[in-house]
Amino acid sequence: MPTSTRPDLLLPADPGQRALARELYALVARLPIISPHGHVDPALLAEDQPFGDPAQLLIVPDHYLTRMLLSQGVPPSELGVPSRDGTPVETDGRRIWRRFAEHWHLFRGTPSRLWLEQTFTEVFGVDTRLSPATADEVYDALAAKLAEPDFRPRALFERFNIEVLATTESPLDDLGRHAKLAADGWGGPGGRVVTTFRPDNVVDLEFEDWSANVDRLGEITGEDTGTYAGYLAALRARRAAFIDAGATSSDHGHRTARTLDLGADAATLFDRARRGRAEPGDAEAFAAHMLLEFARMSLDDGLVMQLHPGAVRNHNRWLYARHGRDVGGDIPQVTEYVHALAPLLDAYGNDPRLRVVLYTLDEDTFTRELAPLAGGYAALLLGAPWWFLDSPEVLRRFRETVTETAGFYNTAGFVDDTRAFCSIPVRHDVARRIDAGFLARLVAEHRLPMDEAAETIVDLAYRLPKQVYKFGEGQQ
Amino acid sequence: MPTSTRPDLLLPADPGQRALARELYALVARLPIISPHGHVDPALLAEDQPFGDPAQLLIVPDHYLTRMLLSQGVPPSELGVPSRDGTPVETDGRRIWRRFAEHWHLFRGTPSRLWLEQTFTEVFGVDTRLSPATADEVYDALAAKLAEPDFRPRALFERFNIEVLATTESPLDDLGRHAKLAADGWGGPGGRVVTTFRPDNVVDLEFEDWSANVDRLGEITGEDTGTYAGYLAALRARRAAFIDAGATSSDHGHRTARTLDLGADAATLFDRARRGRAEPGDAEAFAAHMLLEFARMSLDDGLVMQLHPGAVRNHNRWLYARHGRDVGGDIPQVTEYVHALAPLLDAYGNDPRLRVVLYTLDEDTFTRELAPLAGGYAALLLGAPWWFLDSPEVLRRFRETVTETAGFYNTAGFVDDTRAFCSIPVRHDVARRIDAGFLARLVAEHRLPMDEAAETIVDLAYRLPKQVYKFGEGQQ
Amino acid sequence: MPTSTRPDLLLPADPGQRALARELYALVARLPIISPHGHVDPALLAEDQPFGDPAQLLIVPDHYLTRMLLSQGVPPSELGVPSRDGTPVETDGRRIWRRFAEHWHLFRGTPSRLWLEQTFTEVFGVDTRLSPATADEVYDALAAKLAEPDFRPRALFERFNIEVLATTESPLDDLGRHAKLAADGWGGPGGRVVTTFRPDNVVDLEFEDWSANVDRLGEITGEDTGTYAGYLAALRARRAAFIDAGATSSDHGHRTARTLDLGADAATLFDRARRGRAEPGDAEAFAAHMLLEFARMSLDDGLVMQLHPGAVRNHNRWLYARHGRDVGGDIPQVTEYVHALAPLLDAYGNDPRLRVVLYTLDEDTFTRELAPLAGGYAALLLGAPWWFLDSPEVLRRFRETVTETAGFYNTAGFVDDTRAFCSIPVRHDVARRIDAGFLARLVAEHRLPMDEAAETIVDLAYRLPKQVYKFGEGQQ
Repeated sequence: MPTSTRPDLLLPADPGQRALARELYALVARLPIISPHGHVDPALLAEDQPFGDPAQLLIVPDHYLTRMLLSQGVPPSELGVPSRDGTPVETDGRRIWRRFAEHWHLFRGTPSRLWLEQTFTEVFGVDTRLSPATADEVYDALAAKLAEPDFRPRALFERFNIEVLATTESPLDDLGRHAKLAADGWGGPGGRVVTTFRPDNVVDLEFEDWSANVDRLGEITGEDTGTYAGYLAALRARRAAFIDAGATSSDHGHRTARTLDLGADAATLFDRARRGRAEPGDAEAFAAHMLLEFARMSLDDGLVMQLHPGAVRNHNRWLYARHGRDVGGDIPQVTEYVHALAPLLDAYGNDPRLRVVLYTLDEDTFTRELAPLAGGYAALLLGAPWWFLDSPEVLRRFRETVTETAGFYNTAGFVDDTRAFCSIPVRHDVARRIDAGFLARLVAEHRLPMDEAAETIVDLAYRLPKQVYKFGEGQQ
Repeated sequence: MPTSTRPDLLLPADPGQRALARELYALVARLPIISPHGHVDPALLAEDQPFGDPAQLLIVPDHYLTRMLLSQGVPPSELGVPSRDGTPVETDGRRIWRRFAEHWHLFRGTPSRLWLEQTFTEVFGVDTRLSPATADEVYDALAAKLAEPDFRPRALFERFNIEVLATTESPLDDLGRHAKLAADGWGGPGGRVVTTFRPDNVVDLEFEDWSANVDRLGEITGEDTGTYAGYLAALRARRAAFIDAGATSSDHGHRTARTLDLGADAATLFDRARRGRAEPGDAEAFAAHMLLEFARMSLDDGLVMQLHPGAVRNHNRWLYARHGRDVGGDIPQVTEYVHALAPLLDAYGNDPRLRVVLYTLDEDTFTRELAPLAGGYAALLLGAPWWFLDSPEVLRRFRETVTETAGFYNTAGFVDDTRAFCSIPVRHDVARRIDAGFLARLVAEHRLPMDEAAETIVDLAYRLPKQVYKFGEGQQ
Repeated sequence: MPTSTRPDLLLPADPGQRALARELYALVARLPIISPHGHVDPALLAEDQPFGDPAQLLIVPDHYLTRMLLSQGVPPSELGVPSRDGTPVETDGRRIWRRFAEHWHLFRGTPSRLWLEQTFTEVFGVDTRLSPATADEVYDALAAKLAEPDFRPRALFERFNIEVLATTESPLDDLGRHAKLAADGWGGPGGRVVTTFRPDNVVDLEFEDWSANVDRLGEITGEDTGTYAGYLAALRARRAAFIDAGATSSDHGHRTARTLDLGADAATLFDRARRGRAEPGDAEAFAAHMLLEFARMSLDDGLVMQLHPGAVRNHNRWLYARHGRDVGGDIPQVTEYVHALAPLLDAYGNDPRLRVVLYTLDEDTFTRELAPLAGGYAALLLGAPWWFLDSPEVLRRFRETVTETAGFYNTAGFVDDTRAFCSIPVRHDVARRIDAGFLARLVAEHRLPMDEAAETIVDLAYRLPKQVYKFGEGQQ
């Protein structure tokens, strides 16, 4: 779904490069969207109910927005973010919307502004510029659209031209919504909506209720998760169930990129943790070890591994205490890959049957670590800039820093990683535009002929993610 | 004070962007200068004596210049830098000037060259290009100007259109020059020249004569600085005196960004240090703890906290032995913020009454740490690129890396941080030009409408620093 | 040797800047090549035999190429890389070439593509675009050229307009090829082909066969390398022999940039290691200490020191086990300079008789560490971006990040550091083009007058490396 109102959005300002970029962008503007990783609630598409009011849809769940207002002293409760400590929370959509519009200038120069504006104009056809004065007008126009059947999730999914969308579930999820999707012809292997296996809540010993989660994992699978062997068997069983629900990849969100082969000690450490006697360092060591276990499972069942390291979760402790997880309180930290991944790479790094997609929150590793690793190991690919880095400037810097050592073909295509369903088309559009601009510069500087740039941009937008994440026929 | 001789200085080369940048720059070129942090000697403005010769004014005290010549084998003593070990020092201004001019090519592509050239042309109206051949001509022309009454400090202050200038003093300073300024109608609360509270020499246990300094702090305030409680009381008293002299902020220059709440151990550690029995790690822990104490004081008295971490002071030990502090021998180091600031942020990070302006010498933290922190905590703002980073390329990269996550409104406006009074207008001019160029690119790429870019540049150049540092009426 | 087929290759796309860049580039396009550091085999020029087939010349020994194919699952044995574990290896040049051509798209946007393409067109006059379909045609055209006398090494050396080329040898090398070169009027002090003293294999205690190497060092020199004093004497003797063979510099490739003065402990540690009883940490401490020893020797004999820290050697252990060293299995790591170099700088950093050229694999140190150090110590200069960083984008970023603090004249000119003799002219050409583009931007932004930019680009391309590495008359 290309941009109608700002055809040259994000294309290079130099007229020569812009003309080339336009040509390249035109090749991908209307290509279907491959969305191999994200956090859209599958219930949305399984149930296909109308969305809520504009504030509940676009502001309340978007921590990019609420953290920016928090940074200027507006508490999340005033924006409707649910509290878990009894703090009263604004529930009036219009009042939330007005408060947000008062602070709209804070978002100048941010991707959030771009995503929202493009969502207004391209998805909802609302061209009124948001401001404190127009807040009600925009709200009403959006609300009117949301009441129409064309704006239900499945209708939008089709209009967005999404070919495949992966959601993310924990092994404890019963995959009921995916079963419903499969029953409706939308899900299952090769379907339009698939799941992703994300086992953090049964792998991270410090996860809230880890041991209870492992108990539950045993109940679901009928395995004895009181033992390490049973625990592994249970994980294998859930992976099989996820694959039956269409999953082609797993996802692992650890504090660091550390990997480790604990060997026989893994069982000892697991037992200790199950008895509530985990020692300092056990959580990190066990998580590191489990990446090797999951790599071994991937060699068997073919799931692509995604690694998302480097977030300090709940850094803002006041925010966590009041509003819980995933509301904008996480902060990136220095992330080391070269030594951290060595045990995994020693074991399986040169095996092309394994496929590991690396993400980062630490831009400083692009040239020094990630590009040399991905350009030198068969198993590694680089994921798109992630989270705080999912923005026009960083998407451009990603290409500028990574391509010379890893090329284009050790990258895995754009990943929107979003909870915000309505922003999916604009996010992919932004990535396509930035790639068009980067390739246009290579052409303008006589570093790449136009015909190869044209083939490359289609690969980046469509073919590569489809192949890397094993969507479509002929995939192993 | 805009640039007359090079109207397009530093504006983007692409004609379309340049036209937009010109328009934006024109809106701020003549705005008054807000200089909320720097190291101009207040005696200069209190006494308003004529400046010395051109070399004594522009070269001898500028460690950017003397370190560059040192890097090519010219010792600072040959440039007139005072020695403390008896090394003979060149005192002839003209000879210093000639020696400097011989090495002028070393500064190609540096901000020092830009600052000096613009000082010659815009401040002194001297258009002759500096070179070994023209050294005397330039020297004589500058010396002639410096003899005129229009080139005394206060006259220049007015010509520079400085609205407010903050100097920096230690708690041991008697603030006599600021009293004189207040008596002359130039200083005091709301005045044109104000002070800043910089307590490093009574906080850093490893500062030369720390204990004697703390004794002196007791004498000045009448508090018993033999105890920790008395020490805190004395600091509070000096803060009050600084506020009476117009201060709106404090400044803290630590080795790292570490913060810590020692609780009752703070007094123990203080006592130990006062008895000359500080243990390894005490200095860093005490400095870290004092940042929390100062935050608590700020909540009471409203001073904005500025943090300047990350310099390895006196890295060049030969230079320090011969010439002392602040002559170009400091070097930046890796600086970590995410974990270091956690104790301070846990305590007060979400309190909008606190205002902490973070600076860095470590550019690698822009996207990974500083922007996410400033974009997620109410108390934090980002200071302008500092010291080694105070240059056109880094000012541009600062906007390119910080804006997408923190926006413009979690930054604190430009800070010149200079000892070189005559360079103040050009430094602010450079920042305004770079911001104009960056905003022009956002406009050219259709990411921001021109009217909002226009409002933003005025905010960056004038409104934001005035508000952040609490200058002007209506400020709490 | 300028580029004929793509005159604007790598020049900025903006027409105004491009015009300036063309003018600047024209000044250096035909200047002789100074190649002060690299890994060309001196036997090539000593014996002047025809090169092998195109695959053996251009693909097999180029680990940039073989690692990229490995990253996509093509094992190096299929590309002819010799194995040391008995793995069968492809030996048919044409089959290797076809396999490579099938993966040519992987190199889009990489410097390897640029280097190869320009080698085809500029060195060999082969303009056919490489693709799977044209693989044979290109192979045959190259093979035909390689059979001509004009394509022997010495003829190419002259056509490449190389004024001086430094190879790199270990102290155990008998320098026989350099003796042959001297006898032919090509080598020796002031000659066209000189050597470089690289003692890693007798300095790194963990180097394969270190102790045997030190024995051999004793045999070659007649010194008793059973003692530390004898070891130092032997190193001094080899340095003298290298200087007689034309060497003007030494080269040191350590894991880190750490330096240390062990004092009398150095002998103890040496003895321990010679008895096979090295303790953990000894290898790093000894290497760090030896940098100080080599600095002391440099003060005596005038060799320029080159430091190449930061590679994790043989990170890809499978690759090392099968194919040995230097085949693409090394990965950069975080490298710290500020504290690591302090002992060396405390001792000799302000002595302009010492000349240390610093290289890095860690781009993140450019603004934070390297530019401030080189801009503040007389002994330090910055080497060109190295290895993974030797690419158009990083060459540009190097100037953008380093110049403002270190200027141009604390950098040491371009170094190709290559084993690939035929790629030397294109590598230097790329650097000259990037510098032309960077200087053109400074001119276009009114930061540097054109005449000074013109002088600077000639300095960067020719005068600076010649002076820094002490080639030519009048050098100390």
